[in-house]
Amino acid sequence: MPRVSKDHLDARRHQILDGARVCFARYGYEGATVRRLEEATGLSRGAIFHHFRDKESLFLALAEDDAHRMADVVAREGLVQVMRDLLAAPNGADWLGSRLELSRRLRTDPEFRARWAERSERLTLATRQRLLRQREAGNLRDDIDVTVLTSYLELVLEGLVSHLAMGLPADDLEPVLDLVESSVRRARPRS
Amino acid sequence: MPRVSKDHLDARRHQILDGARVCFARYGYEGATVRRLEEATGLSRGAIFHHFRDKESLFLALAEDDAHRMADVVAREGLVQVMRDLLAAPNGADWLGSRLELSRRLRTDPEFRARWAERSERLTLATRQRLLRQREAGNLRDDIDVTVLTSYLELVLEGLVSHLAMGLPADDLEPVLDLVESSVRRARPRS
Repeated sequence: MPRVSKDHLDARRHQILDGARVCFARYGYEGATVRRLEEATGLSRGAIFHHFRDKESLFLALAEDDAHRMADVVAREGLVQVMRDLLAAPNGADWLGSRLELSRRLRTDPEFRARWAERSERLTLATRQRLLRQREAGNLRDDIDVTVLTSYLELVLEGLVSHLAMGLPADDLEPVLDLVESSVRRARPRS
Repeated sequence: MPRVSKDHLDARRHQILDGARVCFARYGYEGATVRRLEEATGLSRGAIFHHFRDKESLFLALAEDDAHRMADVVAREGLVQVMRDLLAAPNGADWLGSRLELSRRLRTDPEFRARWAERSERLTLATRQRLLRQREAGNLRDDIDVTVLTSYLELVLEGLVSHLAMGLPADDLEPVLDLVESSVRRARPRS
């Protein structure tokens, strides 16, 4: 396949994902009809379902795309930085919307849950590897297992996502994230 | 009003709330039709809306009821204990379902958000007062403001609710809650 064609396919794929993200966030999974997906992406149903087998595959690709982006930030800067970015993001609403739809579908649809489970490992893995590197560098507390610290950070992230998605005030959360960060760090000797 | 009548009204009110809780959890807010609410409560629509003005008022009463119960546990045993109870509860699913519906409605309906804001203060207040008492008793770390500690615990709770509502595995979360608890406690001197 010539290079230009692959670039074109990638661009088209991203166009669909970006439009679908807004659409799912605004109307929810069930409310995001094919007609609305066409409007939101500016593409025909033929073009959309050339790239994605069906609506569920499109939604899954979207959630996976988000998880990969987060994993990249985690690998470079850690999960607390992902949370700080979320706090600072003025346009995080679309991402949050699709994330909340993901939560709903995971709750109500066991089959979907199984499909998602295979794909959601990456974020956990990126977090765990980052923590292991931090422990080697002597920055991490060493009295608690890395698995526990990973679950802890993921749990706080989940809470933050939920908090922001509900539109609750977030201007007081910076010191909370400082506390989260300090609670996985090696304790400084008391002066 | 004679005493027996008030008891009867209270019992009827609880009957409606218990049935509605299951119904909202199973079908979601929009899917919980009046007919389904009748089935779930075993009462006629006339009886239901004698007690609650409309479906939204019923849903709000339900969410408020949950928040009060949690506030009671917080006052006695703290917010971390609420989380431990959640982990241990085999039948927490209904409660989680309505909680997740609450999150959705808060996100999509600003008017509802305003109605809810007035009622959700109680849990925050109970948490804050409990922490203040713990600080006086010398059990709490004193280098971080109680407001920050309160927000921190609420954020973790939100994450836990979301985690459980998604049906994710929870058998590894006990040590995570230990970490949460220790991170608001006064540090023990290192031996």
